[in-house]
Amino acid sequence: MEFNRKHLLELKGLTREEITFILDTAESFKEVLKRPIPKVPTLRGKTIVNLFFEPSTRTRISFELAQKRLSADSVSFTAATSSVLKGETLRDTARNIEAMNIDMVVIRHGASGAPHFLTQCVKASIINAGDGQHEHPTQGLLDIMTLREKFKTLEKLKVAIIGDVAHSRVARSNIYGLQAMGAEVALCGPPTMMPLDAEQWQAEIFYNLDDALAWADVVNVLRIQLERQQKGLFPSTREYHKLYGITRARVEKAKKEITILHPGPINRGVEIESEMADSEFSLILDQVTNGVAVRMAVLYLLSGGRGAERFDESTN
Amino acid sequence: MEFNRKHLLELKGLTREEITFILDTAESFKEVLKRPIPKVPTLRGKTIVNLFFEPSTRTRISFELAQKRLSADSVSFTAATSSVLKGETLRDTARNIEAMNIDMVVIRHGASGAPHFLTQCVKASIINAGDGQHEHPTQGLLDIMTLREKFKTLEKLKVAIIGDVAHSRVARSNIYGLQAMGAEVALCGPPTMMPLDAEQWQAEIFYNLDDALAWADVVNVLRIQLERQQKGLFPSTREYHKLYGITRARVEKAKKEITILHPGPINRGVEIESEMADSEFSLILDQVTNGVAVRMAVLYLLSGGRGAERFDESTN
Amino acid sequence: MEFNRKHLLELKGLTREEITFILDTAESFKEVLKRPIPKVPTLRGKTIVNLFFEPSTRTRISFELAQKRLSADSVSFTAATSSVLKGETLRDTARNIEAMNIDMVVIRHGASGAPHFLTQCVKASIINAGDGQHEHPTQGLLDIMTLREKFKTLEKLKVAIIGDVAHSRVARSNIYGLQAMGAEVALCGPPTMMPLDAEQWQAEIFYNLDDALAWADVVNVLRIQLERQQKGLFPSTREYHKLYGITRARVEKAKKEITILHPGPINRGVEIESEMADSEFSLILDQVTNGVAVRMAVLYLLSGGRGAERFDESTN
Repeated sequence: MEFNRKHLLELKGLTREEITFILDTAESFKEVLKRPIPKVPTLRGKTIVNLFFEPSTRTRISFELAQKRLSADSVSFTAATSSVLKGETLRDTARNIEAMNIDMVVIRHGASGAPHFLTQCVKASIINAGDGQHEHPTQGLLDIMTLREKFKTLEKLKVAIIGDVAHSRVARSNIYGLQAMGAEVALCGPPTMMPLDAEQWQAEIFYNLDDALAWADVVNVLRIQLERQQKGLFPSTREYHKLYGITRARVEKAKKEITILHPGPINRGVEIESEMADSEFSLILDQVTNGVAVRMAVLYLLSGGRGAERFDESTN
Repeated sequence: MEFNRKHLLELKGLTREEITFILDTAESFKEVLKRPIPKVPTLRGKTIVNLFFEPSTRTRISFELAQKRLSADSVSFTAATSSVLKGETLRDTARNIEAMNIDMVVIRHGASGAPHFLTQCVKASIINAGDGQHEHPTQGLLDIMTLREKFKTLEKLKVAIIGDVAHSRVARSNIYGLQAMGAEVALCGPPTMMPLDAEQWQAEIFYNLDDALAWADVVNVLRIQLERQQKGLFPSTREYHKLYGITRARVEKAKKEITILHPGPINRGVEIESEMADSEFSLILDQVTNGVAVRMAVLYLLSGGRGAERFDESTN
Repeated sequence: MEFNRKHLLELKGLTREEITFILDTAESFKEVLKRPIPKVPTLRGKTIVNLFFEPSTRTRISFELAQKRLSADSVSFTAATSSVLKGETLRDTARNIEAMNIDMVVIRHGASGAPHFLTQCVKASIINAGDGQHEHPTQGLLDIMTLREKFKTLEKLKVAIIGDVAHSRVARSNIYGLQAMGAEVALCGPPTMMPLDAEQWQAEIFYNLDDALAWADVVNVLRIQLERQQKGLFPSTREYHKLYGITRARVEKAKKEITILHPGPINRGVEIESEMADSEFSLILDQVTNGVAVRMAVLYLLSGGRGAERFDESTN
């Protein structure tokens, strides 16, 4: 098949074929990463700007590594200051970047829709690295890749997303991507953290963690974003852990194997017991490894790459 | 001709021949930037340190892109903390950089004269990326390049610089560079923003924007630096906009085509009406595009490059 | 010989043969740095992450330059925020980095032992770029390299370390490294700045600077870390300078040539008279030059390099 999209703004609307194509390409790049020199000249001469308007460590490093391994030239710009968050300045920033002959922009922004807005101002390809409470599509893709590696197919796989679903861009990307791949999705958390329109999502809702664990093959445990949510969504982290924290005792009570994902960074002892994050159930580090490969695949395909061809060794 | 300067500290003192030579070289690089792989091995193995003691987004990205496209190795250091702003520390910083075998230093600094000071401490080439209220020579060059592209020659071209001329390094570089190229320069703004020694500059002074527009072929609209200027230079941004803001109504009143430049970032609705910044009069994005090419030319020529030779395709 | 270490956490425990081998390798790289293109393809395809949890300018630039000159791919992460300083997050940060297939981690951290802790979490090579009050081994190595270049051998060389020895990681790395190389070490400073277990170090202790200068061939003058030490260690910088500041008058009183080292950045007029830092006694800039070469050698040897072989010109 051909992958004809120019931007990656969200998983909403991507077909099963498109997601499968991205993941197949990512698997090819994962092989590249095992070589003694884990580098291909695929994007040599392409210029990528990373615009991180929100603090980020691992997503930024993951994208930067993906770019270096594709031999792209990249420049990073990090800002958390309020003056650059105004929409109009974003537009001017974008158009200036455009004028510098940039091929691709990776953007993380606190405002939902900021990456979509950029597509209206510039001709470069835009990759959403997380926007407000909207989506975080490369996170969704790496989650799906990790599950596909373990379960071969996602058809009928039961995935429960646990935590502050209402405010989570990771949750949104997971729901759209998982459902496109044929998985069944459930949401679990306190009522204050469930989206108001949850019924429309064809996802089961659990308010009790034990019920969710009894139902699920996989739990994707969201980080409790203490800094982002308004006060009052839950009484305390201790209370949250007691009701919704993933512990060995609760998982064993479900009497079956349950696979655990977490987008990181982990609040150990809050949404998940520290020991469980490192347990035999956890695929958390596989997610990180797959993140670099998925981002290489997305950068490659959006820049016009033709998919799962052989990647020759770098000669530069 | 040969370009025998080692540093680029200011446009003051550059001859018309020298500026023309830089611009011709920049035009060659602009061709390079249109190639599928916009990169040449010209500065391979050269080491450049970017020292930004003041916040900057676009100038820093522009310099970094220019360096990558010349295949130089660069390291960037950003600091706005007061402890590194002391003259003595700057000297030690510079001498340390020197000791690391650096070829060129790009410096932005809040103190006028900081780049000149560096030339006395180190053997590396120094490029001024903006120093206090002194000069911002690569900005002046890209402004002149943009006007030359449109008007072919600057001879007798009438350029009015609008705004806080007294505190503007962009204004100073424009005045020196434009006059060297044969253009006529006028300054326009409230008396509080005019330099005390303005008469010495052989520039006409307008306190009324309509008079300036009636005179000018080109207006270079300075950013109102709210953060830098002392209180009291103007009553309010609204008042400023009313008296000195570039609007379609005022430009149409002048009954002729007027070309608009702005160094960015734009305060839309203050020094220029938002719609006018994106209008058919504006060359603002051409300035940004030319910025990368001008900076490539400056880096190349100061490192001993011999000017408008052909740039072979990168082989690395 | 072969260099079989995987990490560089401290100079404590390194043998004279190992230090000599590192320095011989660094001398080879110093030759590389004098070439027109000071670059070798030695670490091409290797990925290095620089994690600086404490502010740093020169050490970070020195490491980044060393990496570029070895053609490694590197990504840098700078943080001084408290949230990433928690031990548990450091472990998760480290394991995430691991999962991204990193070959080496260069870490600076405010907590003594943080680099050692990382070796227990990840498989990558760890290089300590300064940890709390423990060690700063590449600084120790570059100090020793600088002295070896001047004196040929360190056997019986008398080195006095002046200043806040108790809180200094530079002092600790110097003591271990210098003693391994056969030098004699003395410590000099006010009693509040001497380590409580100083006797165990087989180092002479001087509380009077003139006595130390009478004894020493070399003084390694520590930076007074105003920001790190608790109040009360000395009455004032003026008092400190009067008692322990290196001045020409005091050095001349010793009636012999004394070599001066300083790890930088210098507090001119506090621990050393400004004029003396730039005097004929000072090797301070040689230290900086050697820093890049030493870091190249350490990166090369820890990644499996076989020492003082010939480094071919880069062909990429």
